Amino acid sequence: MSNEYLTFDETAEALLAKAKRDGAETMWDRRAAQKTQCGFGEAGVCCRICAMGPCRVSPVPGKGAERGICGANADTIVARNWARMVAGGCSAHSDHARDIVHALHAAKAEGPFKIRDEKKLRVLAGEWGIADADTKETYALAHDVANIALEEFGKPFGTQRFLTRAPQSRQDIWKKERIAPRAVDMEVTTLMHSTHIGCASDYESIFRRGMRTGLADGWGGSMLGTEISDILYGTPTARATEANLGCISDDMVNILIHGHDPNLAEMIVLAAQNPEMVELAKAKGAKGINLVGMCCTGNEMTMRHGVKMAGNFYQQEMCIITGAIEAAVVDVQCIFPALPALAKNYHTRFISTSEKAKIAGDLYLEFTEATGLENATEIVKIAVENFPNRDAAKVEIPDFKMPAMVGYSVEAIIDHLDAVVNSQLEDKLGGVKPLTDVIYAGVIRGAAGVVGCNNPKQTHDLAHIKIMEELIKNDVICVATGCAAQAAAKAGLLTLDAKEKCGRGLKEVCERVNIPPVLHMGSCVDISRILVLVNLCAEEKGVDPAALPVVGIAPEWMSEKAVSIANYVVGSGINTYLGVIPQVLGAPNFVKLITEDVMDIVGAKFVWEKDPMVMVDMIMEDLEAKRTALGI
Amino acid sequence: MSNEYLTFDETAEALLAKAKRDGAETMWDRRAAQKTQCGFGEAGVCCRICAMGPCRVSPVPGKGAERGICGANADTIVARNWARMVAGGCSAHSDHARDIVHALHAAKAEGPFKIRDEKKLRVLAGEWGIADADTKETYALAHDVANIALEEFGKPFGTQRFLTRAPQSRQDIWKKERIAPRAVDMEVTTLMHSTHIGCASDYESIFRRGMRTGLADGWGGSMLGTEISDILYGTPTARATEANLGCISDDMVNILIHGHDPNLAEMIVLAAQNPEMVELAKAKGAKGINLVGMCCTGNEMTMRHGVKMAGNFYQQEMCIITGAIEAAVVDVQCIFPALPALAKNYHTRFISTSEKAKIAGDLYLEFTEATGLENATEIVKIAVENFPNRDAAKVEIPDFKMPAMVGYSVEAIIDHLDAVVNSQLEDKLGGVKPLTDVIYAGVIRGAAGVVGCNNPKQTHDLAHIKIMEELIKNDVICVATGCAAQAAAKAGLLTLDAKEKCGRGLKEVCERVNIPPVLHMGSCVDISRILVLVNLCAEEKGVDPAALPVVGIAPEWMSEKAVSIANYVVGSGINTYLGVIPQVLGAPNFVKLITEDVMDIVGAKFVWEKDPMVMVDMIMEDLEAKRTALGI
Repeated sequence: MSNEYLTFDETAEALLAKAKRDGAETMWDRRAAQKTQCGFGEAGVCCRICAMGPCRVSPVPGKGAERGICGANADTIVARNWARMVAGGCSAHSDHARDIVHALHAAKAEGPFKIRDEKKLRVLAGEWGIADADTKETYALAHDVANIALEEFGKPFGTQRFLTRAPQSRQDIWKKERIAPRAVDMEVTTLMHSTHIGCASDYESIFRRGMRTGLADGWGGSMLGTEISDILYGTPTARATEANLGCISDDMVNILIHGHDPNLAEMIVLAAQNPEMVELAKAKGAKGINLVGMCCTGNEMTMRHGVKMAGNFYQQEMCIITGAIEAAVVDVQCIFPALPALAKNYHTRFISTSEKAKIAGDLYLEFTEATGLENATEIVKIAVENFPNRDAAKVEIPDFKMPAMVGYSVEAIIDHLDAVVNSQLEDKLGGVKPLTDVIYAGVIRGAAGVVGCNNPKQTHDLAHIKIMEELIKNDVICVATGCAAQAAAKAGLLTLDAKEKCGRGLKEVCERVNIPPVLHMGSCVDISRILVLVNLCAEEKGVDPAALPVVGIAPEWMSEKAVSIANYVVGSGINTYLGVIPQVLGAPNFVKLITEDVMDIVGAKFVWEKDPMVMVDMIMEDLEAKRTALGI
Repeated sequence: MSNEYLTFDETAEALLAKAKRDGAETMWDRRAAQKTQCGFGEAGVCCRICAMGPCRVSPVPGKGAERGICGANADTIVARNWARMVAGGCSAHSDHARDIVHALHAAKAEGPFKIRDEKKLRVLAGEWGIADADTKETYALAHDVANIALEEFGKPFGTQRFLTRAPQSRQDIWKKERIAPRAVDMEVTTLMHSTHIGCASDYESIFRRGMRTGLADGWGGSMLGTEISDILYGTPTARATEANLGCISDDMVNILIHGHDPNLAEMIVLAAQNPEMVELAKAKGAKGINLVGMCCTGNEMTMRHGVKMAGNFYQQEMCIITGAIEAAVVDVQCIFPALPALAKNYHTRFISTSEKAKIAGDLYLEFTEATGLENATEIVKIAVENFPNRDAAKVEIPDFKMPAMVGYSVEAIIDHLDAVVNSQLEDKLGGVKPLTDVIYAGVIRGAAGVVGCNNPKQTHDLAHIKIMEELIKNDVICVATGCAAQAAAKAGLLTLDAKEKCGRGLKEVCERVNIPPVLHMGSCVDISRILVLVNLCAEEKGVDPAALPVVGIAPEWMSEKAVSIANYVVGSGINTYLGVIPQVLGAPNFVKLITEDVMDIVGAKFVWEKDPMVMVDMIMEDLEAKRTALGI
C-alpha cells in the first residue's frame, strides 16, 4: 500500500512508523487484513434479514441467483439494506439529541446544566406556541420546552414541529409524497418493521419510507440536538482556535475528548477549569490541563469554547500513538473499539462513559445527567493523576497545527452579514439577504455544504480538501461540519487568509463580511444549521430550496448517519454528492430511482463520484444549471 | 435434494410436481439456487454496519482477520447483529400492535371497529387506573385506553405498564439488571444507536440492551397487540375448525388471507358475510365465499371465528399453486415477495394492503382504519368477480385436512380449568390452580410453549411435530402459537382425540378438563398470552417463573421476530430451545454468554439443538431438574 493511499495528512507518516515500532495495531493494519471486501456486500445484494438466509443475489443479471429464498430480488434487498442504514443513522443522531433534551429537562439555575442562551430558549418557546414565552421564569420555560421536545420522539400523532421552518412549497411536497416525518422513534420502528422479512418489497415504497426517516433525523432529531445544545451551552459565535495533532501539548495533561454528545464534553470543560484540578496538574509536574477534541465532540467544544481540535475520525488512533494523551474520554459514536487495546501500548487511560456505548477494554465510568459534573471531575482527576506515568521516550507529537476560525452558527453568520446590510436600500438587519444578493448577483456562484466522515475508500482528507479548495476557487462558498470541517481546519481553509485561495467574487465577499471561505458550522447534527440557512435563503427569495444553486457533499462518508443525512438533504431539495459509492450498485432499478426518478418526487437526487476533481466539475455544472433556471 | 428434506407435509409433493408442470417457481427452487450459504453470515461475523466495510472476521480463531477495520471483534459484531435482529423483530410486533391500538382509537358504536369484549376493556382500564373504569361510557373509555396504550410506544419516561403483571421477583430482576423496558419505540431507536459504528463494543452490554428491547416486545408491543385485539374483536373461546390445504374449496370463491394484523382480516370476515357479496358469488357460479387463513392472520381469524387454516409459512406458495385461490390478500410480515409473480401463473389476484408492506407485482389497495370495511368489501368483490377466471384444468386441491380445536386464550383456559376446581377445598374459580396442582402433583411433568416459523434448515413441520408428539407422550402439556400451532393442527394434535398420543397423566388431564394436549393460543403476538399464563402460575405458587418446569421452544424459527421473542422469553426466566442454530457461532464469548452466563442475569438461557429428538431429551432433563429444585 502506498503512503498516498494511507493518508493525505502529513502528520500520519511518522506516527504510523512509530506505531510499528511500538507494536501498536492501527486501522491500516486491519484494513490490510480484510483483503478484498465481499462483492455481494459492496453491491448491497446480501440479505441477512431472516435466518433462512443469508441469501445473496447476483449483482450481475443472469449470473447466479436472482432472488433470495423468500423471493426478494436485488432491488428489494438493496432498498431494505439502504433503509436500515437510514434507521441506524437517524437513531444515532436522534438518540444523542434525546440525551441533550434530558439535560435540558434536568437544567436548574444552580447548574451544572444551565440555560446559557436564554434568548434562543424564548424564541423557540415562542415558535412552539408556549404561553408567556417572553415572561415565564427561565427554568420553568426550559422544562416546558424540554417536555415538548421529548414528545417529538414519541408522540402518537402529528408530524415534526420543525417542518414548518421550511417554505410552504417544500412542506407541500412532503405532504403530497407522504414523507413528512412523524415522531422520530416511530419512524425508526416502522421502518424496521417495513424492512422485516415479508413486509415491503416495492423498492420505491421502501425508499420513500427511508427518506421519511431521514427527514425525521434532519428536521427532528438533529435539529432538536442543535437547538437544545445551543440553549444549554450557548449558541456558537465566531472565534479562533487551532487544529491538528500539534495541539497536543508536551508539558500539559492532555485529555482527548472524542465522540458526539456535548453533555459530557461541557462538563469536562467545566471540570478542567476547576482550580483544584489545575493545581493538582501542577503538583503532578504538568503546566496545566489541555483539552483536545476529536470528531463531533471536538466540533461541539471548539464551536462554543474554542477548544483545540486534535483531528478527525482517522486520527483517533494517531492521538494515542503520540504517547502524550493522559486520558481518552469518549461518549457515543465513531469510537474505534480498538482504542482501549491501542491505549495499553502507552500510559493512556481509555474511559468510556455512556451506557449506550460501553466499550470493553479499560475503564467504564458512567456519565449521567444527575451526576454529570462529579463524573467529569473524576475523569479529569484520573487523567491528571496519570500524567507522571507518561513515558517521555514514547512521546512524539507531530509539529503540525493550523489556526482556524470556527463558531459559525446561523446566528453568527447573520451577525456577520448584518455588517454589510445596505441600509440605504432599507434592507433589514437580522436576515440572509446579503448572502442571497451576492449569490443572485453572481458574485458567488453558489454554496456547498461539505460534511461527513473519513473512509479508507478515499485517501484520508484528500477528497474533502481538494473539493473545498476547488469550489472556493470557483467562487462557491462552503459550509462544513463534522470531520469535513476538521479536514478544512487542518488544511488552513478556515482562516481569513484562505480568501487568497478563492475566486475574485468569493474573495471579495470574505473580505467584506470578514469570514473565511469555508465556514465551520459545527458537528454532524449541526447539518440542521445548514438546513435552516438554506431554507432562510429560499424564503428570502420566495423559491423552493430545490431552486437554489446549493449542493450537499459527503466526500469521504462511512457511517449510517451519513446515509440518513443524505436522505434528508435530498429530501429537502438539495442534490447530494457522495465520494464513496453507496452499497446499491447491485440493483439497477434502485440506482435509477435514487439518481434520476427521485427528482420527480423531491426535486433533488443522489450523485456519486469517486474522483474529487470530476465531482467538482459535475457540481459546477449543477450550480450553473440552477442559476440558468432561475434566470440569474 | 431428497423429498424428505423438501417437506414433511404430505400435501406438498403433488403440488410441487404441479408447480413444475405449471412453470411456477417455488422457494425450493430459490433455495437450491442459493447453493452454499455464506459461512461468514451464518457464523454472524460479517459486519455491514458502516461503509468502510463490509468487514468479515474469521469464525476460526487465528485464521484470517480477527477484527474489522474499526477494531470490532467477533463478539462485538455478533452481538450487534443479534441485537439488530431483536430491533427488527420488536419493531414488527409492536408496529402491528400500534395499528390495532389505532383501530381502538377509531372505534365507535356504529362500527366497523367496535368493542366486542367490553369486560376486558373495563378490566384493562381498571388495571391502568383509569377513573370510572366500571361505569364510563364504553367508547369514551375505549379512547382513554387507546391513548394510554399509544403512550407505551413513545412516552419519554417510565417503563412498560404490563411489567407489573409479572411477580415481584421478576420485576426486581429486570430493575436490578437494568433491562426493564421503557417506551417500545425508544428501545428500538436506542438499540439501533448503540449498535451504530463506534458505539457499544462490550458484547454483554449490547446483549442486555437487546434483551431489554425484546422485553419491550413481549411485555409491551405484543401484549398490547393481544389485549387490544381481544377488546376489539373478542377474546377467543374454544371452537372447532379445520386445517390444511384441503380447506380450500373447489366450488366456492376462495380468499386467502395471509399476514399478521387482524384489522384487515376482521373487516374481510365482515365483508365476506355481506349478503350482497354472497349473492354476487352465487351469480358468478360459486356456492359462496370461503375464507382461508395463513400464518398469523390465519391464527387470529381461526381463534375468533373458526376460519379454516390453509396452512403455515411454507404453504403460502402451495395455496396459490392449487389454482383455486381467487385472491391472496395480505397485510404485513412473512409474505413472500415472490407471491405476485407466482400468482400470475394462475388466475389468482394478489392484493397487498398495508402502506407498511407494499408488495410489488399486482394490485396495491391501501387499507386504512378510516375506510376499513369499504376496502375489505372492494377486495372481496375483486375476488368474487375473479371466480369465473378460474381454470378448472389448473385446479388441484390436496385432499388433506384435519379437524382442530382452537381458541385457547388465557380466559378460555381458565374457563376450562374452572370445571375441575375442587370446591370442597374452597379453591376459587377463575384461576390457574388446577393447572399448577397437576404440575406440582406430577400428573403432568411440565409445560412447553412451542412457537415460531418454518425454515428450510429444518424439514417443514417435522421438528414442530416430532417435538410436540414426544413432549405430550412424556406428559408435558404444550401450548402453541404461530406456524407451530398450524403445524400441530395439521398433524391432528389440536384434537381431543390426541389425548391418545399422551402419557397417562396428561391424557387424564385432557379428559377431565376437556382439552387437547396441545392448546392453540393464537398468533405470534399472542405469545404474550403464554407469558401471562406462566406468570399466573408463578404467582399462584409464589415462585419466580424461572423456578417452574416450563420451557419455550422455537423448532423451525426464521424471523427477526423469533429472535426478539427468544430474548423476552429468556428474559422472563424461561429457558428457550431453538431448533435452528442462531447466527452467533463465530463468537465463542457471546455464545457462552447467552447459553451459560445469562443464567446469572435472568435465571434462564438459550439452548439450540437441530435434532428434535435430542432436544426433547434435553428439555425433559431440564423440566425434571426444575421439579427436583422445587422439591416436587
